[in-house]
Amino acid sequence: MQLQPIGHIFTQYRTKEECPIQPVYSSEAKGRIEVIEEYAAGLKDIETFSHIYLLYLFDRAGEIRLIRPTFLDDEPHGIYASRHPCRPNGIGMSIVRLEERQNNILIVSGADVLDGTPLLDIKPYIPRFDIIKSASNGWVGDRPLRPKPINRE
Amino acid sequence: MQLQPIGHIFTQYRTKEECPIQPVYSSEAKGRIEVIEEYAAGLKDIETFSHIYLLYLFDRAGEIRLIRPTFLDDEPHGIYASRHPCRPNGIGMSIVRLEERQNNILIVSGADVLDGTPLLDIKPYIPRFDIIKSASNGWVGDRPLRPKPINRE
Repeated sequence: MQLQPIGHIFTQYRTKEECPIQPVYSSEAKGRIEVIEEYAAGLKDIETFSHIYLLYLFDRAGEIRLIRPTFLDDEPHGIYASRHPCRPNGIGMSIVRLEERQNNILIVSGADVLDGTPLLDIKPYIPRFDIIKSASNGWVGDRPLRPKPINRE
Repeated sequence: MQLQPIGHIFTQYRTKEECPIQPVYSSEAKGRIEVIEEYAAGLKDIETFSHIYLLYLFDRAGEIRLIRPTFLDDEPHGIYASRHPCRPNGIGMSIVRLEERQNNILIVSGADVLDGTPLLDIKPYIPRFDIIKSASNGWVGDRPLRPKPINRE
């Protein structure tokens, strides 16, 4: 199947090493989303939500490996038990805070993606559907964050 | 960009009218995910999580309209302020409970998708990252659910 970007995400992050691991750890960092004019009408009412999902393409990810160490620990985990960018189909997902909308431009905070990332979709974050209090953190547990290793894709 | 299914999602839902609106409203319904053998290694450690995101293709969605009524009310909303299937790029997202793994087969509950839906990606649901207590329900508010209208795509 063939997908086309509906816009792009612009951030302060120019290299993978600068890029935070998850939006919650880049919550102060502002991003600008430019939706292509052709799709701008689809943004109607988006400003009623405080948070949105961004689905985007990991367009500068490295080699795909199905089992690999992640950014959170040194143990190898399956790519589907991880949010690591180097994955089949290369679709990324981030939950960001929607700060402001100006026509086809969205200002968000917490965008943990590389500058110029192609945007595939936007969906509203709806706590009624998306907060699952009983869910477990799996192998991630309560691991403290650590500095991102250099040269690890 | 070109994507390939990594597997398929099998459910009891054969028609759009049978299909629930959100996973939380189909929580008893079991689904079976068959990941293609080639990608099965990527499932390592997925069983440590209680919930997972499924990203999939809305392969039987109708005509794309950027502003349309949704399943929750009769007001027209922008497609990006909605989870409606008929959207550019046609990527769907559901959070489901992972009940069991048998090699490349995942048994889940809450799969609100049509039988045979092509699967694009699986990501772990990680409450540390994904529960945003302060988020608003936007226009969805606390609207009660209503029966799904027939013949509305």
